[in-house]
Amino acid sequence: MSHPPTPVPPPALDPAQLALGDMDVEAFRRHGHAVVEQVARYLESVAERPPLARLRPGSLVAALPPHPPAEPEALETILDDVDRLVVPALTHWTHPRFFAYFSSSASGPGILGEWVAAALNSNAMLWRTAPAATELEQVATGWLGELMGLPASWAGHINDTASVSTLVALAAAREAAGLRIGEEGLAGRPELPRLTVYGSTETHSSVAKAVVTLGLGRAGYRAVACDAAFRMDPAALAEAIAEDQALGRRPLAVVATVGTTSTASVDPVAEIARICADAGLWLHIDAAYGGALAVAPEHRHLLRGTEAADSLVVNPHKGLFVPLDCSVLFVRDPARLRRAFSLVPPYLRASAGDAPAAAGASSIGDLMDTGIALGRRFRALKLWMVMRYFGADGLAARIRAQVALAARVAGFVDSRPGWERMAPASMAVVCFRHHPAGCDDEERLDAHNRAILERLDAGGVVFCSSTELRGRFVLRVAVGQLRTGPADVDRLLLELERAASEDPAA
Amino acid sequence: MSHPPTPVPPPALDPAQLALGDMDVEAFRRHGHAVVEQVARYLESVAERPPLARLRPGSLVAALPPHPPAEPEALETILDDVDRLVVPALTHWTHPRFFAYFSSSASGPGILGEWVAAALNSNAMLWRTAPAATELEQVATGWLGELMGLPASWAGHINDTASVSTLVALAAAREAAGLRIGEEGLAGRPELPRLTVYGSTETHSSVAKAVVTLGLGRAGYRAVACDAAFRMDPAALAEAIAEDQALGRRPLAVVATVGTTSTASVDPVAEIARICADAGLWLHIDAAYGGALAVAPEHRHLLRGTEAADSLVVNPHKGLFVPLDCSVLFVRDPARLRRAFSLVPPYLRASAGDAPAAAGASSIGDLMDTGIALGRRFRALKLWMVMRYFGADGLAARIRAQVALAARVAGFVDSRPGWERMAPASMAVVCFRHHPAGCDDEERLDAHNRAILERLDAGGVVFCSSTELRGRFVLRVAVGQLRTGPADVDRLLLELERAASEDPAA
Repeated sequence: MSHPPTPVPPPALDPAQLALGDMDVEAFRRHGHAVVEQVARYLESVAERPPLARLRPGSLVAALPPHPPAEPEALETILDDVDRLVVPALTHWTHPRFFAYFSSSASGPGILGEWVAAALNSNAMLWRTAPAATELEQVATGWLGELMGLPASWAGHINDTASVSTLVALAAAREAAGLRIGEEGLAGRPELPRLTVYGSTETHSSVAKAVVTLGLGRAGYRAVACDAAFRMDPAALAEAIAEDQALGRRPLAVVATVGTTSTASVDPVAEIARICADAGLWLHIDAAYGGALAVAPEHRHLLRGTEAADSLVVNPHKGLFVPLDCSVLFVRDPARLRRAFSLVPPYLRASAGDAPAAAGASSIGDLMDTGIALGRRFRALKLWMVMRYFGADGLAARIRAQVALAARVAGFVDSRPGWERMAPASMAVVCFRHHPAGCDDEERLDAHNRAILERLDAGGVVFCSSTELRGRFVLRVAVGQLRTGPADVDRLLLELERAASEDPAA
Repeated sequence: MSHPPTPVPPPALDPAQLALGDMDVEAFRRHGHAVVEQVARYLESVAERPPLARLRPGSLVAALPPHPPAEPEALETILDDVDRLVVPALTHWTHPRFFAYFSSSASGPGILGEWVAAALNSNAMLWRTAPAATELEQVATGWLGELMGLPASWAGHINDTASVSTLVALAAAREAAGLRIGEEGLAGRPELPRLTVYGSTETHSSVAKAVVTLGLGRAGYRAVACDAAFRMDPAALAEAIAEDQALGRRPLAVVATVGTTSTASVDPVAEIARICADAGLWLHIDAAYGGALAVAPEHRHLLRGTEAADSLVVNPHKGLFVPLDCSVLFVRDPARLRRAFSLVPPYLRASAGDAPAAAGASSIGDLMDTGIALGRRFRALKLWMVMRYFGADGLAARIRAQVALAARVAGFVDSRPGWERMAPASMAVVCFRHHPAGCDDEERLDAHNRAILERLDAGGVVFCSSTELRGRFVLRVAVGQLRTGPADVDRLLLELERAASEDPAA
């Protein structure tokens, strides 16, 4: 059947308009070199800035025009505004005295990898739309798995964040339960039991968010108790599973963590794996932070037991010097991801003959089939470049240095009067508080340590974060920034002493 | 309580090891300038490459070492490998004769915005962790909404892709149903009905994927019929809703599309909105592609009716010259996103006093609360830079040029004997096939047009894609690459004629 021509007459082809196009390549060259210098100046001077932004909420909004410009603006003007307005309104994740959360180090080779990827703008939804990005993702995640000592048969898949990697893993777990959930869904099926996913009281909040997104509800997530060192208690897990089974619920999956967010504690994975095997549950390992440590051979034991898991997430953008975002989901059996996610519409069907499976390269599938996002940036490039630039030994040495620097913080806390460690030091994370002799009122200690943190924030020299352990306010230092050296740690310790002594509440 | 010191003695601080750190800034400068030149050479020469990669699956994997290097490699070596091995294995999304799928143009200012963002490495999970990124996201999405003519009260939130934006919107819709799904989940609740989301037979597959992810199952997604111009039939929608209600199912949401993936058709949004209002359904607009057109005032009518919607997604990485990834989800009421997603753990609680709400800037929340991913790149920067560099008028002129170029393709198809248009031309998309006089065997026509596409692919001059309309194989051209000019379209038409005449099956 033939359609009538477009109802509106096509606009005339105005040559001036058609010639508009993109910034020309000579201008790109000029501006690109200016950006290199601007970025280099930023990297050179970031240590002189306060790591935590100091501005009133809404300041940047107020400083910018409320409406977009009608006319083009010069790139020089825009880059000036970046320096003048944007950079001062940043909390500097590349600052050598960024000790908050988990750091994300944008290393030189990582930044440059991102630069090349942005220009290539490859979209790895199908193999044919991005063979290089698809195959490099297989190579780079394979290398990473080898560096971490993961089983060689596992397949890696890059997502933006661990939140999404975990969501994808638990979606696969849900599908693997054999309840035809992908086909029939969960609602309005009286024959279905309630489904439960287990973590611990120290598990990252993204797991509960994934459970909610998947339609299991906050009630479908159970946080089992931890031992005194903030590790999931396997007996409590077994009990929770038995309890749910007795109530007619269907236990689905357990998320065990290697490097929890508060204290970097490590769940007893081998014991948990046995419980999962007995009960037929999917075991997902959240090694978003801790997995990177395993690249240093002496820390590889941290992943002991994970070889029995079904999936594992590690974030190279946390511990492996790759800029945001880059989260690798490893799975024992990628077919289980595809079962949860593959839906191929006609406009994405490749023409005959070029499908990898048809050509015998069955291990290289279309990456859109193993995750949620259809469009996929070329994230493998920066990961591959970082591994090559530093080399396995160089990565291990840098990880080792961070652990050593964190041990220096732990040593300070353990040896100086008035300071108290609140959790075993693990990996490169130390949780502690100031506890002046004679002051044993917990509320007052909370207020005192809150005041210390506020002083640190206001001081503009170091940025730490805090957490809550057993209901108490705790200071938390994580060493993870590639630019952090011993002098930065010494400065942190000095600032801690100063802030503690200056709080009148003490 | 005090914890014992770390069980393992801390490693000695080896000064040589601690000094390893990052690539030094002088080296970064040198390598950065080299990357500028390498990228400029790529942009200058991309038109000479075949747009669609021509290699056997697995070739790049085979060309790379199976194991990561132990020792560091020189960045020059790595960048040489990018040129020598990676670039030739790419399908070039920045190619001026990329007419497949929907193009994603990495414009000069967009690439440079990504470069700055990669170096700053800001993580906009909380306002305090990235005030500039959080506030610039509000400003940039506000500007974009204004350019598209959206209600000024709507709030924008950036995700990686439309797949995720739609998932987030439908999660909010699920929560807004008032069934306590966030709390209780969907499974094992006999009181809950089956829930249904509606699209059309032309709706993007990411909607079905989102429905499956949310636990509604493929059965929870209904694709209603379209009219002859591939627009959702409102009568069929009303009927499907009534049918489901009669069966005791609970209709939840409708996804209407402005610019479908196959033909860029536009669903009758105003009529669909009335049906949604009557039935109390959430209306989500998939304007991932089409929304960008509305930046040109003469195309703004495309969004007519969407002001009655609850949410709308537009991808600046599709039609607005921003590199992957950047998808903006607009919502009428961001509190409904927060209700679906907010879960704040203790390690992310800000210290007292600095929460935006406390400081009176209630419109600037923490971005982690309105989506799935916790970690969030500074995507607003490139969007803001692109809008400033081109200006509103410049964006509109470029969009106009693309529509005019597509009209040239439609004019060719409509006027040349042997070619047949298979759908109304819409926006910058044309669907057609070669239909030699006298050949009316549909199977043969399918095979003939498949052969034409294979010839185009093998020719290495243009890259088109295909789709299926009413069961027939159809060639599809989408003009959307900023570097595409009239000569590229003329070359496309020449290649089409050549491929059609050379297929012996015709």
